[in-house]
Amino acid sequence: MSESQSLSALFAPASVAVVGASRSRSKVGGMVLANLLAAGYRGVVHAVNPAAAAAGQSLAGLAPLASSSELPHGVDLAVLCLPRAAALPELALLASRGVRAAIVLAAGFRETGRQGFLAEQELTRIAREAGMLLLGPNSLGLINTACSLNVSFAAGHPAPGGVSFFSQSGAMCVSVLDWAMGLGLGFSKFVSLGNKACLNEAAALRALGDDPETRVILGYCESVEDGREFLAAAREVAARKPVLLLKAGITPAGARAVSAHTGSASGSPAAYHAAFRQAGVIHVGEMSELFSLAQTFALLLPPAGGGLAVVTNAGGPGILAADACARTQLSLPRPAAATLERLLAELPGFASLYNPVDLLGDAGPDRYRTALAYLLADPNIHAALAMLTPTARSEPLQTARAVIEAAHGPDNPQTKPVAACLLGGAAVRPAREALHAAGIPCFDYPETAVAALAALHGRAARVRRDEHAPPADAEEFLPWDDEALSIIEAAQTQGLRELGGVTALEAAHAAGLPVLTTGLARSSAEAVRLAGEIGLPVTLRLALRGGETSGDECFGAGVSPPLADPEAVRRAFGAITSSAARLRPEAGVSGCLVQAAAGIPREGFRLEAGFARDPQFGPLVSFGMAGVGSDLLGDVSHRLAPLTREDAREMLREVRFYPLLRGVGGGQVVSLAALERLLLGVSRLAWRAPALAGASFTPVLAGTEGVFVAGARLALV
Amino acid sequence: MSESQSLSALFAPASVAVVGASRSRSKVGGMVLANLLAAGYRGVVHAVNPAAAAAGQSLAGLAPLASSSELPHGVDLAVLCLPRAAALPELALLASRGVRAAIVLAAGFRETGRQGFLAEQELTRIAREAGMLLLGPNSLGLINTACSLNVSFAAGHPAPGGVSFFSQSGAMCVSVLDWAMGLGLGFSKFVSLGNKACLNEAAALRALGDDPETRVILGYCESVEDGREFLAAAREVAARKPVLLLKAGITPAGARAVSAHTGSASGSPAAYHAAFRQAGVIHVGEMSELFSLAQTFALLLPPAGGGLAVVTNAGGPGILAADACARTQLSLPRPAAATLERLLAELPGFASLYNPVDLLGDAGPDRYRTALAYLLADPNIHAALAMLTPTARSEPLQTARAVIEAAHGPDNPQTKPVAACLLGGAAVRPAREALHAAGIPCFDYPETAVAALAALHGRAARVRRDEHAPPADAEEFLPWDDEALSIIEAAQTQGLRELGGVTALEAAHAAGLPVLTTGLARSSAEAVRLAGEIGLPVTLRLALRGGETSGDECFGAGVSPPLADPEAVRRAFGAITSSAARLRPEAGVSGCLVQAAAGIPREGFRLEAGFARDPQFGPLVSFGMAGVGSDLLGDVSHRLAPLTREDAREMLREVRFYPLLRGVGGGQVVSLAALERLLLGVSRLAWRAPALAGASFTPVLAGTEGVFVAGARLALV
Repeated sequence: MSESQSLSALFAPASVAVVGASRSRSKVGGMVLANLLAAGYRGVVHAVNPAAAAAGQSLAGLAPLASSSELPHGVDLAVLCLPRAAALPELALLASRGVRAAIVLAAGFRETGRQGFLAEQELTRIAREAGMLLLGPNSLGLINTACSLNVSFAAGHPAPGGVSFFSQSGAMCVSVLDWAMGLGLGFSKFVSLGNKACLNEAAALRALGDDPETRVILGYCESVEDGREFLAAAREVAARKPVLLLKAGITPAGARAVSAHTGSASGSPAAYHAAFRQAGVIHVGEMSELFSLAQTFALLLPPAGGGLAVVTNAGGPGILAADACARTQLSLPRPAAATLERLLAELPGFASLYNPVDLLGDAGPDRYRTALAYLLADPNIHAALAMLTPTARSEPLQTARAVIEAAHGPDNPQTKPVAACLLGGAAVRPAREALHAAGIPCFDYPETAVAALAALHGRAARVRRDEHAPPADAEEFLPWDDEALSIIEAAQTQGLRELGGVTALEAAHAAGLPVLTTGLARSSAEAVRLAGEIGLPVTLRLALRGGETSGDECFGAGVSPPLADPEAVRRAFGAITSSAARLRPEAGVSGCLVQAAAGIPREGFRLEAGFARDPQFGPLVSFGMAGVGSDLLGDVSHRLAPLTREDAREMLREVRFYPLLRGVGGGQVVSLAALERLLLGVSRLAWRAPALAGASFTPVLAGTEGVFVAGARLALV
Repeated sequence: MSESQSLSALFAPASVAVVGASRSRSKVGGMVLANLLAAGYRGVVHAVNPAAAAAGQSLAGLAPLASSSELPHGVDLAVLCLPRAAALPELALLASRGVRAAIVLAAGFRETGRQGFLAEQELTRIAREAGMLLLGPNSLGLINTACSLNVSFAAGHPAPGGVSFFSQSGAMCVSVLDWAMGLGLGFSKFVSLGNKACLNEAAALRALGDDPETRVILGYCESVEDGREFLAAAREVAARKPVLLLKAGITPAGARAVSAHTGSASGSPAAYHAAFRQAGVIHVGEMSELFSLAQTFALLLPPAGGGLAVVTNAGGPGILAADACARTQLSLPRPAAATLERLLAELPGFASLYNPVDLLGDAGPDRYRTALAYLLADPNIHAALAMLTPTARSEPLQTARAVIEAAHGPDNPQTKPVAACLLGGAAVRPAREALHAAGIPCFDYPETAVAALAALHGRAARVRRDEHAPPADAEEFLPWDDEALSIIEAAQTQGLRELGGVTALEAAHAAGLPVLTTGLARSSAEAVRLAGEIGLPVTLRLALRGGETSGDECFGAGVSPPLADPEAVRRAFGAITSSAARLRPEAGVSGCLVQAAAGIPREGFRLEAGFARDPQFGPLVSFGMAGVGSDLLGDVSHRLAPLTREDAREMLREVRFYPLLRGVGGGQVVSLAALERLLLGVSRLAWRAPALAGASFTPVLAGTEGVFVAGARLALV
């Protein structure tokens, strides 16, 4: 059976067996059966209940079967409303009856410890061997409004619509369902993944990505099962549809709570952030955003740019909207001259015609309609937000109708997105309902409205960017020498856990990184000789423990200025090694690294690049300033390897000190292209050398003259 | 008449005259009269309407007066429901009748340009001369539920309660009123300040601060009339009651929108942030927070610490709460051993007993009651959040009752604050209403709940801190020499706009700042002589334009390393001046600054301190890293002068690089006391030298050896 056949057996089954069906709504099997029938499912329904069958009772009008063995062969979907102990043999029986998909609702599996874990493995084995699709265990079930299917034990059935939701947490399903019904937000599918024994978030993403009825995918996850699989699925699907994910456990404290809850190790927050960014997933930061964003993406087309027009009947809320815009990529462009002229002709004298456009407290529907029509025709404006405060003179419901007319009527031929913000409770309720019914997103607060429109613009901009220049893998960008792998292999053979000093720099050089020519001198004479070979001027760095640790990682004074003549090299060698040996005899001074200094930036930046392997997502490349500061200040950017050029570019732009690299404020200008190449090189090393657990290249000296790796440490797995 | 008499005439009048009263509710004068009577006001009401009086019509059962001149002498409050043109002569007439307070509702004053501005000045003059308190113009009116007074033209009357709200924007009053009625949030006073011709936000703060019925003050402002007066009032009131302010126009874009709306220049966002912090005002960042915070402060007592217990029937929302806590000062302590034992004995086996405490999806009210009782008795726990997801087995209403019982009953003898979070819509509505009715704050989302409890804890911690160590003015902390003022005066006499180089350092030294001994050398011989006087080693800095600019502000290469002998000084002078003259002949090389280098940090930090005068709030002291980086990275802390020691301490703690100053990560340890003294010195200079428009001390060299000002620039007003 193909994957899509199996998926359709789950999501749009022609027949459903409720195993453990009950007459009592206080039992799971009763709720599922009641929900299924109440939703108006038009396929064949079988109910299995030995006791009811023996007693000759009907279950909600159906004649129950005494056992699953009485099911006809090849039922599409079976829902197991049975406790854990009964679920295992039942699943085997259903497999033998050729059932194509199953949902296990019982809890008590992996989340409860070793015994549950083994039981869950057994479930998976049975399903895999039978080629049966399995949802759960510990699932709340499934809803598909498109075929009136509700095989869940949640209360209520949402209105049909273009949003689909998948969730690791059943509780979150119930909450979202309850809220959605209140908001009138239409849903296509609700999928409670539970323990994800077979169907995980990557599979759910692909299924919903292929589902023609799903326009927006909403998800809640605590952990992902396979980071790379998730990344691949999310990237593929997010290119086609908006994917909005709320990830719980995104702080260290939250991650600990995830482990306590699910018993599974979570990837690092930085890796999740990077994965979401690289996949083009919209990262929902708070639960309240789930709804405002879902509504916006479900109802509005993407804007062609970030120019927002705000129309308001009160100054204060307009200012709050302007404040909110300043925190996003949206701008409030001044209307074009022609637009201003038209507004001036039609609006009262005291109205503020700039942006926010203040229609004044006595504005009625006509003023909104006129202003919106003119602004939506303005080439500088790509989206509009109509705000209304219930003043003594305002007519909320009529104004809502005017907004609907402006948004959906001939005044908006390009269907630029239009949203509304109604600041009040009872006074604006009918207006809010009218807007909802007409498919105009309607928010309570200016900040929420602006954040949602900014997310809509952000995704549109990213999609446009990717269409113009699809992210290309930059694997072959730099020269690569397999010597890099040989060095690492040799170190492994020696049983080393870490490589530093000259050897690590050699490996980095072989891997195509722009490494400064460096040699290890154990005597001043050797230093002078190496300086001659490398070419003066050179810099000396204290070398410790066989040359594998350089002293500037330990002592500030272990580095010389550039030395221009052999005598200076000799003197510096003596000064550095003797003072270090005196100050820290235990450090194991072994000499000095002699490093090329010609054309090396002296006034530029000391940067750091590297990678570490995330347990979920694999190599995570990092970039920041060298020294302890970056980590402490949190000013480090991350992306998962392999990097695209765009990823590398974004890593540079994402650190707060990026303007400094560009020379803003009179500093040195650094070649961003050279830094991008460096990051791509680090990414490739991470990808090609699985024997490395991580690498840190620091300091990377960057200035007008170029970008140079002056120090390296490699950690072996 | 005393101020408090006049305030009571406005807020709790014994008699009210509605001038321009009308029978028609579509007119402002009709709405005000109807609201006043509908609210059940028990004082004397006069209605003034010449036409109705002439026609012998009654107005809502009252016999109207033909003119305000017929009012009895000494009416407490008159509400002018008249257009602008009529308001001015009427106010004068009311003044002559001894009316003690007036509200002018008409718009069309300062906000509309010069003519309106003059009319507003005339209003102010009439009120001042008559000793009459004036609210408005452009006000929406006033509500005081405590004496059933509603003299506003807003729709509706809120329930009585402990929250009072003042607002510059009438629209915001209407919105808040409409929302509050929906939320069932009880209010004491609603004050629409309008144009603030007399009664401004500072006066409103003091009035509400003195009002025994007001427990929480909520405010919305776009600008403040007098920054220092506001700061003083806010500081005084916030020490007694929670003051929550939403400031619109807190971004540059928002500030521009404020100017467009009110025509008044706003203070800088940094100055507002500093003023709020220093006054102890809780800065409401978004409109949605107004309600969550108001509810929390109105209903809960301050917690004794930041330990929060989260109780939940679903893991996911618990994780989101943990994530949210990690972004605040709240912690989720592990329950004490005794608590764990009690929980273990009573909760089912799979429940997670740590924190968040997961009661599992089938948790009923008893499990909540038990867990809350044990946790509220735990000494590590200072507050509790009960979260409920409407699962198939949950009983939301009964659980709400259990939460109420745990919070208000004998199980909570210390009345630790307890809040609830109900994740759903219709399924939890009755539970939400029960909690509201019982005075338990109830939130929709875990993040909102945690943020509100964190604000409650933040204020409690500040109040405790101030009680233990009331902020003392540190004016006399450092030696001060009036020579500082003489130098500045001399520069003014010369018509200079700016002072730099040696002179500025001399002024800084006289002002008590730790300045490096510095001299200006115009020749190498003079440099050697100065070096001898100052004491070797010295550092040379290129001096430009008569010594008022030092070269390191222009060229990176304009500074020497520390020079230990006269010959090195001579050579360095030649090298620095000649290369600068060659590279940038236009720069006006005048020699070198010779600066003491003995005991000066070489490996420490290059910092920057200074001040600028904010148009609203006066001198704003700043602190950050030297160089262009700080501003670009936004890593600068600000406080308004005069600083207390605690302010100075907070300024150090607020920059992101604070851990580096403390030596975290192996860096140098800097004397924080010396940095505090530096900031206090800058604050005093700003305070004592009004002739300075600003000052910048950079670089400030800070390391283990001490803190030293190496460069100074003073801007004259």
